[in-house]
Amino acid sequence: MGNFVACCKGFWCRTKNPDVRISLPAVCFVWQIAMIILFGLFVRYNEESDAHWAEHRQKKNITSDIENDFYYRYPSFQDVHVMIFVGFGFLMTFLKRYSFGGVGFNFLIAAFGLQWALLMQGWFHFLDPVDGTIKIGIENIINADFCVAGCLIAYGALLGKVSPVQLMVLTLFGIPLFAVEEYIILHVLHVRDAGGSMVIHTFGAYYGLTISWILYRPKLDLSKRLSGSVYHSDVFAMIGTLFLWMFWPSFNSAISDHGDGQHRAAINTYLALASSVLTTFAISSLSAKKGKLDMVHIQNATLAGGVAMGTAAEFMISPYGSLIVGFCCGIISTFGYLVLTPFMEKYLKIQDTCGIHNLHAMPGLLGGVIGAITAATASESVYGHEGLVNTFDFEGYYAKRTPATQGGFQAAGLCVALVFGIGGGILVGCILRLPFWGDPADENCFDDEVYWEVPEDEESIPPILEYNTHMVGKNADMTSESNFTVEQS
Amino acid sequence: MGNFVACCKGFWCRTKNPDVRISLPAVCFVWQIAMIILFGLFVRYNEESDAHWAEHRQKKNITSDIENDFYYRYPSFQDVHVMIFVGFGFLMTFLKRYSFGGVGFNFLIAAFGLQWALLMQGWFHFLDPVDGTIKIGIENIINADFCVAGCLIAYGALLGKVSPVQLMVLTLFGIPLFAVEEYIILHVLHVRDAGGSMVIHTFGAYYGLTISWILYRPKLDLSKRLSGSVYHSDVFAMIGTLFLWMFWPSFNSAISDHGDGQHRAAINTYLALASSVLTTFAISSLSAKKGKLDMVHIQNATLAGGVAMGTAAEFMISPYGSLIVGFCCGIISTFGYLVLTPFMEKYLKIQDTCGIHNLHAMPGLLGGVIGAITAATASESVYGHEGLVNTFDFEGYYAKRTPATQGGFQAAGLCVALVFGIGGGILVGCILRLPFWGDPADENCFDDEVYWEVPEDEESIPPILEYNTHMVGKNADMTSESNFTVEQS
Amino acid sequence: MGNFVACCKGFWCRTKNPDVRISLPAVCFVWQIAMIILFGLFVRYNEESDAHWAEHRQKKNITSDIENDFYYRYPSFQDVHVMIFVGFGFLMTFLKRYSFGGVGFNFLIAAFGLQWALLMQGWFHFLDPVDGTIKIGIENIINADFCVAGCLIAYGALLGKVSPVQLMVLTLFGIPLFAVEEYIILHVLHVRDAGGSMVIHTFGAYYGLTISWILYRPKLDLSKRLSGSVYHSDVFAMIGTLFLWMFWPSFNSAISDHGDGQHRAAINTYLALASSVLTTFAISSLSAKKGKLDMVHIQNATLAGGVAMGTAAEFMISPYGSLIVGFCCGIISTFGYLVLTPFMEKYLKIQDTCGIHNLHAMPGLLGGVIGAITAATASESVYGHEGLVNTFDFEGYYAKRTPATQGGFQAAGLCVALVFGIGGGILVGCILRLPFWGDPADENCFDDEVYWEVPEDEESIPPILEYNTHMVGKNADMTSESNFTVEQS
Repeated sequence: MGNFVACCKGFWCRTKNPDVRISLPAVCFVWQIAMIILFGLFVRYNEESDAHWAEHRQKKNITSDIENDFYYRYPSFQDVHVMIFVGFGFLMTFLKRYSFGGVGFNFLIAAFGLQWALLMQGWFHFLDPVDGTIKIGIENIINADFCVAGCLIAYGALLGKVSPVQLMVLTLFGIPLFAVEEYIILHVLHVRDAGGSMVIHTFGAYYGLTISWILYRPKLDLSKRLSGSVYHSDVFAMIGTLFLWMFWPSFNSAISDHGDGQHRAAINTYLALASSVLTTFAISSLSAKKGKLDMVHIQNATLAGGVAMGTAAEFMISPYGSLIVGFCCGIISTFGYLVLTPFMEKYLKIQDTCGIHNLHAMPGLLGGVIGAITAATASESVYGHEGLVNTFDFEGYYAKRTPATQGGFQAAGLCVALVFGIGGGILVGCILRLPFWGDPADENCFDDEVYWEVPEDEESIPPILEYNTHMVGKNADMTSESNFTVEQS
Repeated sequence: MGNFVACCKGFWCRTKNPDVRISLPAVCFVWQIAMIILFGLFVRYNEESDAHWAEHRQKKNITSDIENDFYYRYPSFQDVHVMIFVGFGFLMTFLKRYSFGGVGFNFLIAAFGLQWALLMQGWFHFLDPVDGTIKIGIENIINADFCVAGCLIAYGALLGKVSPVQLMVLTLFGIPLFAVEEYIILHVLHVRDAGGSMVIHTFGAYYGLTISWILYRPKLDLSKRLSGSVYHSDVFAMIGTLFLWMFWPSFNSAISDHGDGQHRAAINTYLALASSVLTTFAISSLSAKKGKLDMVHIQNATLAGGVAMGTAAEFMISPYGSLIVGFCCGIISTFGYLVLTPFMEKYLKIQDTCGIHNLHAMPGLLGGVIGAITAATASESVYGHEGLVNTFDFEGYYAKRTPATQGGFQAAGLCVALVFGIGGGILVGCILRLPFWGDPADENCFDDEVYWEVPEDEESIPPILEYNTHMVGKNADMTSESNFTVEQS
Repeated sequence: MGNFVACCKGFWCRTKNPDVRISLPAVCFVWQIAMIILFGLFVRYNEESDAHWAEHRQKKNITSDIENDFYYRYPSFQDVHVMIFVGFGFLMTFLKRYSFGGVGFNFLIAAFGLQWALLMQGWFHFLDPVDGTIKIGIENIINADFCVAGCLIAYGALLGKVSPVQLMVLTLFGIPLFAVEEYIILHVLHVRDAGGSMVIHTFGAYYGLTISWILYRPKLDLSKRLSGSVYHSDVFAMIGTLFLWMFWPSFNSAISDHGDGQHRAAINTYLALASSVLTTFAISSLSAKKGKLDMVHIQNATLAGGVAMGTAAEFMISPYGSLIVGFCCGIISTFGYLVLTPFMEKYLKIQDTCGIHNLHAMPGLLGGVIGAITAATASESVYGHEGLVNTFDFEGYYAKRTPATQGGFQAAGLCVALVFGIGGGILVGCILRLPFWGDPADENCFDDEVYWEVPEDEESIPPILEYNTHMVGKNADMTSESNFTVEQS
């Protein structure tokens, strides 16, 4: 039986060769060595993580170690870190036979991406003009995690259809694209986007969707047997959902201003998320026969409120404003899963495995627009003079910018994110179409067997249709026999 | 075969109609809109989360942003948040086919409850006398999570036997009951209860048990096939257990006094929990043939020490005192599962799915009593003068209260919690008996099929007895055939 | 059928009696009572967790409650706590039928061990010379968790092959061994080891490996059917892996110096971990036919970078230095799984269930060496004068020690850890060979059935070979019949 399976597999592999034995190790080794060399040349500790901190403290009259930025941001950093690895990772375990790939490749590209992001973001934002090095501290590693999030969102659209090597390439290009886009939005346009509705979510989603469009597989139906969930995989995915949901207030507040900025960002996000849970349940139930809830909606659309608060979280959007944002996003996102995802697959040829268009693209766009409006309507009466200056950084070169102008720049930032997402996606999509990346055949999409040693038993899902038809008569006996082999060996 | 199943289901549905397609969306929409309106009227940022913080800081001579309450409490808040959504949620995934409902409905009612709690607790505790608004900050959102915990405990007794609409109603009434009870205990009686042994656990448990008593189902045996766990569901439940267990020190210290109060509360809870693990394992092994441990005990009774330290955690109960509390609670709680739960089901007609009587009611009562005794025996020699005043808030109107008197008031607080729990439970139980809430038939309890789109395969558990008997001869073939259908479609 | 199984089991039990009904409760009760008595005699709150803190603050001119050590270390403590209970616990759920034992016994011995560690470490490090008591605060409970980690690592080698009573004994002896070893390394030799590469990992791993060597089971093949994973158990194990991986920066920084020490330790660990993920994936893919990744490597070797940074994390090893450490460890650890584990089992008679030799022993040794080298090469130009003194505590008696000497002492510390690990392992291994600890028979290793009430259904894995052979012909019918029994009862 083993031979038979191997033979069948050999047949399918003639068309595609998903063997990554050379390419994956090569990519991992070479890029990791490159990271080491580049870190050796460029990356140093900043003054808060350097052993000279004690001297620095005295020089700057800092009264206590607790004023080290570490204590302001480390708890939020750890929450963000959990979102990146457990949140995104487990959210992608929902497929019945792609949990290894979902959580495993997420792990791989995030671990590579964060190193690469420290360098790219460092060159653009944190380069020391004196000695040309990048000085890193807690804020840099939060930003690196943020940068990685953009690529993980893109992975969501491609889940199950690409090889780990393709994902590494996607990350290799995605990180610099992100860093440039972020530089233009935050520094050139001086836009505020603490939780990254535009910078992270809009960019990441359109980057992934464009790549998915270019990598369109007309015969993806051939692996339809594996494109759904099973009971336990849906529960695993809820681990991802809940850790994302719970820690999103930390995500949006992680790099906002000390004091009221972080405090307000956390509260606003907390409220928006709560609100989108209720509307998600409502639409999910309303749209189904007998009002049965769909796990896909609960796993994803409940998070839309957090995405949409990414820009405005640190503004004075007011508690009820946050609830309204969440209210709308839960509705829009759930409708997306019901209507847009099938539409996009059928007519726009975009196969979006996790539905990132509904979870990241639309709420991200909405978040950018809400941010622009909230910024444009900001006033000294609401923020206080000092509060307005602090919140929007109207200092130095930007001292004379008005809230209305700021609103315009915020909107411009959204366009930049879109352009980079789609443009970058076209570029990287074309690269990923090259024939040597080891992507799976249409029949083997969503199947961990292709890239992982999957444990022998529990093989309830037969790998290929023909094999199944052929074996049916002998099925029970064969199973028992193969059990024996295991037992007796 | 599909028709046959549908037909069988149709038969059972004649008696009960668990279709929530209209009621659930209606409840979610209307209540969420009500929240938005009420938040618009009443809820504002407090001075620490408002953009005027910079001015406020200068006025009050606060030297640093790190003095913002956010930095004192945010890490504890996130731990509490994890307990509410992952802890309570996954603890309720232990049933073989109710994991979606366990974690999903927990998510729904917590997301609604926290908004409602911000309002209700705000009106009672945080109303600004000048402009009639509620000013919210980090402490409010911790308190909202606490308030929600009361309703989630109640859900534990009803798990699998009620519809999501009933749970929303339970929460709608539970939150104001909690807020009034909390106001009487903490403000009128001036009782200390930082971790909520009385306010949260005693109230929540008796609220849920009373409702369960009123909703008694004499024929619940009809869904006995689904009332147990399977191997993997027990492992999922351990995720809930462990996150509750690990973060309970944060729960009990989240709103205690800055400095030594939070510090001591965390240490005491840490010790009590460790101690109850050992006695739980001991009793569980002692009570079984061949000493085999029971997962139900490990999942639940190990947490009893945390519940019982809810009141006394911030007192000078001393480390060995905490160990003694945990020691007793592990024993009592495990005995509860062995003896009381079956007794209550048989003779008192209380069906308590998760055994909240053992995990919350008894340890909560005990915690209240321990708190009263510890308070009554407090002395200046142990606390220091300032320490005694700080710990029990013997200031202003209460400056002359003695520890002995405080002990009496603590005991009175426990009675208030009991009265509100039972009284509120009777009221809400009667409301939930009304025939239009869409609760499942006795045959369909503990079954996700009723309210969720459950993935097709892995249907190892046949839905109804008759169907099973009938199909047995054709079983193997049918399975193969249905596989085909999936493959070929 | 039930009788038949019981009969088979009875047969095997003749050789070994794994009934722990008397011994486990006895051990839990007696030791817990001993803890209570010893805590009553010795353990008190320290000045930061005592109600006299307010007075202490004024005396010491501490300006704010935020200077309480609680706020410096509590977030890290909670992360470490998660690593101990969820990280180690779920990492050990990978076996197909030993998830209860993996996560459950981990829970039991950690809960006992942390109490015992508070006492033992207290006697050696924190004894108040005035009144002979141990004053505990946040740093003590972090240290207790660390101490427990040593025993949990040892459990990894023995997973599935020992009884819970044996594990309690292993912990009972392991904790004092750890405390003495730690006292010699940190206090007598004045070695720095904040993240415990030597103190925790080297000691724990050799302690466990030596015990496993003494408890060698030549016929372990008899339970080979249970020694692998299944699909879902591998996903559960990834929960453990990821929480360990994400929170390792907190582990290595939890008790380093306030300010730059904690900050730098977190960043270095973050980088080393990222680097070892890439080399783990590379070697795993390179070593397999068709480049298929092995979950065992991903679950374990990705963590090696964190282990190896345990000593040097708080030093100025520089960011690229951290990357190099992670790079090497990922390679070494994965090779260990490929080559050394089978070699050790075959030729050295060491059965190492979780491969702790690859995850803890080798990276721990390497970490000790790296720490020694980094310390020996430290200089004032890199650290600054004050920084050098702070980092290596060159104060008081040690004011004249040079970095070079320190390097030598670091190396000496590594030897001490090794000696205690192996010596302690021999001692405890011999004790555990005594015949009355209730360890499972060779046929029942890796089987939860022995110590747990396992839910009836999902029994896809037949318990014993003979039974399986016998029943094969009647298999389908019997299964249906047994279903009936469940239904009708």
